[in-house]
Amino acid sequence: MQVSIACTEHNLKSRNGDERLISKQNAAAPNVVNAARAKFRTVAIIARSLGTFTPQHHISLKESTAKQTGMKYSCVTTGQDGVLLSGSTASFLLACGATIRCIGPGSKVQAQVAEQLMTIAYESGVNLFDTAEVYAAGKAEVILGNILKKKGWRRSSLVITTKLYWGGKAETERGLSRKHIIEGLRASLQRLQLEYVDVVFANRPDNNTPMEEIVRAMTHVINQGMAMYWGTSRWSAMEIMEAYSVARQFNMIPPVCEQAEYHLFQREKVEVQLPELYHKIGVGAMTWSPLACGIISGKYGNGVPESSRAALKCYQWLKEKIISEEGRKQQTKLKDLSPIAERLGCTLPQLAVAWCLRNEGVLPKMTSHVVNEIDNILGNKPYSKKDYRS
Amino acid sequence: MQVSIACTEHNLKSRNGDERLISKQNAAAPNVVNAARAKFRTVAIIARSLGTFTPQHHISLKESTAKQTGMKYSCVTTGQDGVLLSGSTASFLLACGATIRCIGPGSKVQAQVAEQLMTIAYESGVNLFDTAEVYAAGKAEVILGNILKKKGWRRSSLVITTKLYWGGKAETERGLSRKHIIEGLRASLQRLQLEYVDVVFANRPDNNTPMEEIVRAMTHVINQGMAMYWGTSRWSAMEIMEAYSVARQFNMIPPVCEQAEYHLFQREKVEVQLPELYHKIGVGAMTWSPLACGIISGKYGNGVPESSRAALKCYQWLKEKIISEEGRKQQTKLKDLSPIAERLGCTLPQLAVAWCLRNEGVLPKMTSHVVNEIDNILGNKPYSKKDYRS
Amino acid sequence: MQVSIACTEHNLKSRNGDERLISKQNAAAPNVVNAARAKFRTVAIIARSLGTFTPQHHISLKESTAKQTGMKYSCVTTGQDGVLLSGSTASFLLACGATIRCIGPGSKVQAQVAEQLMTIAYESGVNLFDTAEVYAAGKAEVILGNILKKKGWRRSSLVITTKLYWGGKAETERGLSRKHIIEGLRASLQRLQLEYVDVVFANRPDNNTPMEEIVRAMTHVINQGMAMYWGTSRWSAMEIMEAYSVARQFNMIPPVCEQAEYHLFQREKVEVQLPELYHKIGVGAMTWSPLACGIISGKYGNGVPESSRAALKCYQWLKEKIISEEGRKQQTKLKDLSPIAERLGCTLPQLAVAWCLRNEGVLPKMTSHVVNEIDNILGNKPYSKKDYRS
Amino acid sequence: MQVSIACTEHNLKSRNGDERLISKQNAAAPNVVNAARAKFRTVAIIARSLGTFTPQHHISLKESTAKQTGMKYSCVTTGQDGVLLSGSTASFLLACGATIRCIGPGSKVQAQVAEQLMTIAYESGVNLFDTAEVYAAGKAEVILGNILKKKGWRRSSLVITTKLYWGGKAETERGLSRKHIIEGLRASLQRLQLEYVDVVFANRPDNNTPMEEIVRAMTHVINQGMAMYWGTSRWSAMEIMEAYSVARQFNMIPPVCEQAEYHLFQREKVEVQLPELYHKIGVGAMTWSPLACGIISGKYGNGVPESSRAALKCYQWLKEKIISEEGRKQQTKLKDLSPIAERLGCTLPQLAVAWCLRNEGVLPKMTSHVVNEIDNILGNKPYSKKDYRS
Repeated sequence: MQVSIACTEHNLKSRNGDERLISKQNAAAPNVVNAARAKFRTVAIIARSLGTFTPQHHISLKESTAKQTGMKYSCVTTGQDGVLLSGSTASFLLACGATIRCIGPGSKVQAQVAEQLMTIAYESGVNLFDTAEVYAAGKAEVILGNILKKKGWRRSSLVITTKLYWGGKAETERGLSRKHIIEGLRASLQRLQLEYVDVVFANRPDNNTPMEEIVRAMTHVINQGMAMYWGTSRWSAMEIMEAYSVARQFNMIPPVCEQAEYHLFQREKVEVQLPELYHKIGVGAMTWSPLACGIISGKYGNGVPESSRAALKCYQWLKEKIISEEGRKQQTKLKDLSPIAERLGCTLPQLAVAWCLRNEGVLPKMTSHVVNEIDNILGNKPYSKKDYRS
Repeated sequence: MQVSIACTEHNLKSRNGDERLISKQNAAAPNVVNAARAKFRTVAIIARSLGTFTPQHHISLKESTAKQTGMKYSCVTTGQDGVLLSGSTASFLLACGATIRCIGPGSKVQAQVAEQLMTIAYESGVNLFDTAEVYAAGKAEVILGNILKKKGWRRSSLVITTKLYWGGKAETERGLSRKHIIEGLRASLQRLQLEYVDVVFANRPDNNTPMEEIVRAMTHVINQGMAMYWGTSRWSAMEIMEAYSVARQFNMIPPVCEQAEYHLFQREKVEVQLPELYHKIGVGAMTWSPLACGIISGKYGNGVPESSRAALKCYQWLKEKIISEEGRKQQTKLKDLSPIAERLGCTLPQLAVAWCLRNEGVLPKMTSHVVNEIDNILGNKPYSKKDYRS
Repeated sequence: MQVSIACTEHNLKSRNGDERLISKQNAAAPNVVNAARAKFRTVAIIARSLGTFTPQHHISLKESTAKQTGMKYSCVTTGQDGVLLSGSTASFLLACGATIRCIGPGSKVQAQVAEQLMTIAYESGVNLFDTAEVYAAGKAEVILGNILKKKGWRRSSLVITTKLYWGGKAETERGLSRKHIIEGLRASLQRLQLEYVDVVFANRPDNNTPMEEIVRAMTHVINQGMAMYWGTSRWSAMEIMEAYSVARQFNMIPPVCEQAEYHLFQREKVEVQLPELYHKIGVGAMTWSPLACGIISGKYGNGVPESSRAALKCYQWLKEKIISEEGRKQQTKLKDLSPIAERLGCTLPQLAVAWCLRNEGVLPKMTSHVVNEIDNILGNKPYSKKDYRS
Repeated sequence: MQVSIACTEHNLKSRNGDERLISKQNAAAPNVVNAARAKFRTVAIIARSLGTFTPQHHISLKESTAKQTGMKYSCVTTGQDGVLLSGSTASFLLACGATIRCIGPGSKVQAQVAEQLMTIAYESGVNLFDTAEVYAAGKAEVILGNILKKKGWRRSSLVITTKLYWGGKAETERGLSRKHIIEGLRASLQRLQLEYVDVVFANRPDNNTPMEEIVRAMTHVINQGMAMYWGTSRWSAMEIMEAYSVARQFNMIPPVCEQAEYHLFQREKVEVQLPELYHKIGVGAMTWSPLACGIISGKYGNGVPESSRAALKCYQWLKEKIISEEGRKQQTKLKDLSPIAERLGCTLPQLAVAWCLRNEGVLPKMTSHVVNEIDNILGNKPYSKKDYRS
């Protein structure tokens, strides 16, 4: 099932391998799921406009995020990261994306595991489930919808988001036309068995459709009650400003949130550009890929193992990225970071996720001193002429 | 049942104790309800935008209110005041809030009494029933809805209002996000079995949600037919002005009414600020708590009796308020007011409610001379540089 | 001459009487003016929208103001305060208002002193000169205009503001009609021999003129080049919000600044209301009367001396204020503050002005500890539910 | 005289030193000016909104520019570069800025040379003269104004632009307030003896002035006839988008053009960001500093010569830039570029300017093959995900 779950303050576990949530061998075994459960606390942070839902650690997280970026809320999602795929680490991050897809689309096992994972997540405080019309060719939405219906969780306690795709192969290549936005969202809602999603995202900008048409269509689906808000995904700050500007010119509804890649090796947009955007027009951020498509898992330290995702034929691009000069430099930096993780008693992926959140409540040992230490190893702290943090 | 009923010109009764409408012992006894009926005349005054519904004393009340405040209409509700709880006075004010909740939520008795009270009220001219999503955790709306359905009163003769809450504990802490406004109102309507309410109120301002989002969502639910108007509750005049300003800037629908606390000891907002607001932007007022959470009932004259509301654990704040220096001064003033009530042949709570209305039609003996006498004792008549009465 | 000069970081002088700038005996004596000169350093702080002109202590002052109020700039003017009138103190605050009017309108001496004072002020860094159409019945503007012409100071280095009055006696009682705004400002500009003022203020709100007319007229004079900005004077926060709202509704120019009374005994508006307004709509503040019409000078400690301003027939209201119960309590507080002034080596009026600025750059001994000490004596620190300072 | 002249397809000259246009020794010698004349052909390219003025090579240049950037027009100005100062190269680029200032402000020689240069330029097709209120403390505008008056060139054949500065030292530190924009432009027009400029630029963004105030003031001066258009200088793409957005929201006039630094070592903004901006909102570009403050002249190949600009005390920052590690890498690249210049029969600065224009009409030997060769040496070709050229 391709559903990203807003993540995740997890109980950092000891590094002995026997606590892996789902190993390749027993991915769907309920007992493993249960084993992980006690060790797992999650926090969902939602974008600015969605209000505050999180019962547990919300306040401290919110505050620490604000300290880092000057933005009021932030959000970390795991997107399509397949950390569960990893056999090399026992650490756990709830990332249902690529993982469950590997179990095989449509299989009963898939649906069962998805339900178990989502139940753990929900009961641990996760309340944002992010999917897309293209995940598993629509099956992700179907499974998610079935689970939501079966579980009967209160709708108002959930944030359900989906993304309209285009630019890929096959049928969805219809750009962000009014036709695609309305028809695409309507089809998603049917698959999800929902009346509305909370945020509908436009994945990737579409330069062939006039921005006015995009904003007008998004405003339309909101006014029709098919979505509460609309957001962007992988848009540049300038493109978001353009959408905002068109919304202002014609008194339509501006976007509230951008989904952006954010991890140790990709910082500029989330740390510099989006805070500026937030301060100018109030657009929030929802980040994804804290482990950089698994690159940060550590499993590629000695090349690409046969059983890994990057070895799959359809992930040739990932393999090339990993074995490039830049990719090898990243692996060297990960090796330099390992002693820090070891010292803090966590795995590298755990460190990477805690770093994204930069929250001592999530990982108490993630002090500002440790953050600086990591910055020095990474050597990529972006410079912002404006400091929105003060 | 937690439903505030717009009140209430009541038949001033003699002071002998045997005439209490509902004592703790016989709260649900139909005969007591019937006994009170003859003594009971109510007047509903609704906010400006709602037009005029009141059959009986509407005109004179409207005029006298106008004379006092320069506003065209006013409204007095009793909110959650629990005067019925009081064993110390036989006076009666239709205040279903805390009282009936004590009977026990969901009990058949509760629903029965509620129905009887509402019937009396309706037949006496009360036409505004104000509830909220949080009253008795939603049960208030359910009971109100059932009664309305059973009674089959003409919808157009009723004013049904509800309030979206936030800032309290637990589940409703979702601010005034678009999501909460839409989902919250939809849930209220389902409980009420209504297609729409007349006014949906936003209880308390929410500084974490952009005002534009709040106004846009309120405009949306009105455009969707889920409400006729929207209002504010416990907002400052400045916050209401901001909402109005945003509505004007983006050609959206401004609020029509503010629910404000108003009684002998809280005058500034309703007597000075809201009239100014009314004259500037046409926002009306709907007041609540004429007995100041029971403080004005007189029962706290000699401290906090064991059986009183202020003695309940969850009303610790009320107890502290009563026994504070300020609280004791208020009790002294109440004692000073008693001779006036006695002279007029009414109880102190009756005097307090009549004072809120300042209407000779309600209490013929409440002449301007008496009003001045009360003002002198209270010593808190607010100064308004502008006299909107002329 | 009635011209308020944006004030004033002055060199705190020793308390021996021989250093009085202008005593009644020799108010116009140039040598006294010169004597004061060396002891005098001024700082002009202008309202938000006017940019930054001050060469000297601007940054620290700006910062300290921001710390106090969360507003970016503030401004202290002395309005019509006549501290120069005072024979009881040698302290000095550049306040040309009432003082020079006493010399006699139109006399040559008056114009000479005005020129000398303004020269000192300008050369010390003062750059804002605030006048009004009614000051000395228009003569203030004439004298100011003559001085500006003679001096030839660069116009762009000056901030010249004037106020449209109404509500007084005689000819200007025309309210804030379009007719008065345009004709009044035109007449002021002729008297000032200027093409434009920097800010034209509407003194006191006018409830008889529709706000739309006021904002439209102000927008008109700005578009005609007769003023750079418009502001309000003695308007309530609500009235300013209304003007803003109307400006937004019709895409007109909103006000940028409110002139408000601010001193030890009048804090609420400048410390609570205006910061909220600034944060909502960006309106800045320009304060006046740091010595509360001379009440804070200390000269009324033992009643109203015969030679004082309050003894003048036209200042009967001031006398009544001073000898009221509230007035006597204020004098007691001033006596309690005296030891602090003594300890810091300054006079009471100097302390009062330094307190308005709350800037250690102005009075290095005005530490946060001293500020707290003063707050405790005053007992009137307003409570703001929102802390805009953090 | 500090006037940047939009440049410049010049006659590529042989590299023997005796052909310097203006040496320090004979800066004002008319014969040298005349000598240069024959070798000199200029092209002015103006920003999008200004239409087409250039008699000679306009069309081909426009076309080739469009091919390179997808933008319809481009513009190269030399800003304050002082290549004429250089004794180390005989190459010539019409850059009146720093150069003529060295002759001495106000001298008759200065005015004479300026006139001669401008005459050559104008007669060669240059039609855009860009100045600023701060160039030579206003004298640049005075001289330019005198020349224009004397020459009597048809106003409609000229594009005269000026820039409002702030953020520098001393007197102009007034930000982009309405006051500064109006007063500053008015003063410029007086010095220029013009009724209007064609474009007034806001130099550097001002985060302390609300964007609405800036756009409103720019719209005002345009509506008053003081300027045809307004533009930005050294603003980020996001800041320009914000200005555009505010203009659209309030139906005001958006900016038409951004002045940006552009040369071999600074490419990202002009090659990627501004084309995107152009395609989004139609804002054009006007580039400056083709020789990177003289760094590209080649004279710093062996350190900083005593007689060079970077040796001047006030150019300490330039010296530091040159001797930094980055600076030394740049000099290495310049050495690698020299053989190309030699092969094409031009000097390095000539190559650099021709590269900015990337126009075979300007330098016929600047083929796409040569451009690729240069790109390989520079190694800084920015990646744009969108190709606006197709």
